[in-house]
Amino acid sequence: MVDAKTSQSEDDVSTDAPVTRIALLGCGHVGSQVVRLLTERRAEVEAWAGTALELTGVAVKHPDIERSGVDPALITGDAAGLIEGADIVVEVMGGIEPARGLLLAAMERGASVVTANKALLAAHGPELYAAAAEAGVDLYFEAAVAGAIPIVRPLRESLVGDEIDSVMGIVNGTTNYILDEMTTRGLAFSDALAQAQELGYAEADPTADIEGDDAAAKAAILASLAFGAVVPGEAVHREGITMITPEDIKAAAAMGAVVKLVAVATRLDDGAVSVRVHPAMVPLGHPLAAVHGAENAVVVQARNAGRLMFLGAGAGGAPTASAVMGDLATVARNRCRGVHVPAMTVTQGGRIAAIDEAVTASFVSLVVRDEPGVLAKIATVFARHGVSVAEVRQNHSQTGRSAVLGVTTHASRDSQVTDTLSELSAMTQVVGGRIRRIRVEGS
Amino acid sequence: MVDAKTSQSEDDVSTDAPVTRIALLGCGHVGSQVVRLLTERRAEVEAWAGTALELTGVAVKHPDIERSGVDPALITGDAAGLIEGADIVVEVMGGIEPARGLLLAAMERGASVVTANKALLAAHGPELYAAAAEAGVDLYFEAAVAGAIPIVRPLRESLVGDEIDSVMGIVNGTTNYILDEMTTRGLAFSDALAQAQELGYAEADPTADIEGDDAAAKAAILASLAFGAVVPGEAVHREGITMITPEDIKAAAAMGAVVKLVAVATRLDDGAVSVRVHPAMVPLGHPLAAVHGAENAVVVQARNAGRLMFLGAGAGGAPTASAVMGDLATVARNRCRGVHVPAMTVTQGGRIAAIDEAVTASFVSLVVRDEPGVLAKIATVFARHGVSVAEVRQNHSQTGRSAVLGVTTHASRDSQVTDTLSELSAMTQVVGGRIRRIRVEGS
Repeated sequence: MVDAKTSQSEDDVSTDAPVTRIALLGCGHVGSQVVRLLTERRAEVEAWAGTALELTGVAVKHPDIERSGVDPALITGDAAGLIEGADIVVEVMGGIEPARGLLLAAMERGASVVTANKALLAAHGPELYAAAAEAGVDLYFEAAVAGAIPIVRPLRESLVGDEIDSVMGIVNGTTNYILDEMTTRGLAFSDALAQAQELGYAEADPTADIEGDDAAAKAAILASLAFGAVVPGEAVHREGITMITPEDIKAAAAMGAVVKLVAVATRLDDGAVSVRVHPAMVPLGHPLAAVHGAENAVVVQARNAGRLMFLGAGAGGAPTASAVMGDLATVARNRCRGVHVPAMTVTQGGRIAAIDEAVTASFVSLVVRDEPGVLAKIATVFARHGVSVAEVRQNHSQTGRSAVLGVTTHASRDSQVTDTLSELSAMTQVVGGRIRRIRVEGS
Repeated sequence: MVDAKTSQSEDDVSTDAPVTRIALLGCGHVGSQVVRLLTERRAEVEAWAGTALELTGVAVKHPDIERSGVDPALITGDAAGLIEGADIVVEVMGGIEPARGLLLAAMERGASVVTANKALLAAHGPELYAAAAEAGVDLYFEAAVAGAIPIVRPLRESLVGDEIDSVMGIVNGTTNYILDEMTTRGLAFSDALAQAQELGYAEADPTADIEGDDAAAKAAILASLAFGAVVPGEAVHREGITMITPEDIKAAAAMGAVVKLVAVATRLDDGAVSVRVHPAMVPLGHPLAAVHGAENAVVVQARNAGRLMFLGAGAGGAPTASAVMGDLATVARNRCRGVHVPAMTVTQGGRIAAIDEAVTASFVSLVVRDEPGVLAKIATVFARHGVSVAEVRQNHSQTGRSAVLGVTTHASRDSQVTDTLSELSAMTQVVGGRIRRIRVEGS
């Protein structure tokens, strides 16, 4: 047993440092947890930041609603008025406007910003990053990507001296939950979705999750950080999971893989950045295959560090608030020392590649007439488009008149696979409308 | 396709900022990679740090040996002389002295420090943290724990607004490789060790790895960061893996678990910090069970963020150099802005608990005479010491004269299990010297 001593708590800021005034925009399930943590963890955060923290107000849309745990005197409907006196504005209201206008106004006034708003950053990130640089203030957003998982800081700071080759993540808990249920319990997509809605994992209008829009916003932010490029959310190719069938799940299982909705960002040979969100078969040996339920995970492949994975809760009030508080502590600390960190460092004016240019392996399933020579004809089409075939599985139907071919390709240019499928679909040997393709990642 | 624009690269430091002079101590497999990255990634790191970087020299023990990739003019045997002109000292030489004396001297002169030296921090951390605080300089050490995995920064900065309940990690690649080989190929410990030595995963003298000393040093640093307490390396209870047998591995498999060498740090109910390194059965569903080969991983359980996992390469020249470079970039950035971050924030003068006070589940295996009533007698002993039994498996021998009991306990105070075993070993029904116990973590 050893007695510990307290000796290293000196810091370079005196205890009578000026108070840092914090304005909170939004008081939903994240905002209310930020208010709680600001109370519970005040001492630790103040000690670390070297400044006293004062929550000056909480701006909400409906100030008349009572909010448990929040001093009613702090609640206001006047967000614009609230930010006027703030040193740091914490935005957890979501949506584009009025969030965008409020944050731009706050930074112009010299306030630093902490935000959890992925949709806003994906749509207007460059404008906001430029405003922060112009004003010389911090703009931190750890909570905007993968909830509580510290991924922004490692990408922005820890890996500055390395070179990132790719980022691949499961960054939407709703779709991961649905695919998990389809995989482990054999449910159809619609049934898994209904169950997710019942349990609160999916919203009444699940479009943004199941169509991949939420994941695309996060992919844009991750790609920007990883490659120092401006990647607008709208530039991210996205395919959702609504078309995934139990047959796809079974085909993946036969290959020793699971279907996941992945966000992928890579740099192509010419320096262009390829960013995309789509379902993919992920081999069981890959760490992302073991990410279950509503968890999120991001795998970073760096030239020197090798493969790193970050895993944790991707959403939820308390986890998101934890990430917000970490940012708030650093921003407060930076602020009272008169320094700031660039929100986003653009080191390359890189082009964003179209999905056609992406390089991926694919699994292609097609129903063909069961007649001599059909496999050779199919293989010829793949070869003609320069798509190298890694594996073919053939299952004959019971009637003996058709067969299901499962073709796994080596990594190819996406357009070459698209062209292959287009030619295949016109062949008389291929039974109409039965060609399915799922990309393969992580093998 | 979207064209990206370069617009956010403004920063608050002019391009004619003074040069930051870097002295490198050590040029082994990490140091040589740091030299390489300082060349390859100079532009990116300088842009981020806002200062030009100049490597002023590389101090080594044997300056006469030629080192490929390193300008011979930089090599010197005079480490003390080299640090005199340095703004930042990067120490990758390892060992206690002369590293300790050199870093203390450097900080006293006002230089900031980046080190990868876990043994030094575990043995003399408080002295070094105090010296950094006294001098008002940075002391960064991401590379000292779990190699390339960004874990220090998340613990030190991202989770400041949260509260950490426990940290559990696989932080020694050598022992993880050996246990992995014992698990997947049924090797005995000595054979797996010999193979690890042959492949370069274990050193000729493997003591520090297999006895848990290396993991204990990292556990001390992780515990200090997680709980804001002073945890000297020597205070960490350690048990190595030399006593692990193929039978233990099989018993774990029968329970749906694998044996791992884990570093665990938790806070007990009275606020004391419990830190320990020992083999443990980890259930297959736990993410640490899927950490294979020489990889490292750390699972952080936080009150609000929930469970986070960080996984990656725990050692190696390039991965460790990547972590060193990330630190170097931030330290250079901080330095030319006149700020620093506390190396270690001590928020509690907490006591370090003895291993007896740890609270863990255990698997106990014992050979008993196969006679009526023996199970009841054994169970009575566990109950008398307040150890709650979760599961008992009994395997009768072929002769019918003895049986092997496998008892899994619920979480208990460690001393209660020790006392139970002590009483059991004295019983006539227990066949002498055949009681084995492995703790169970992560269930």
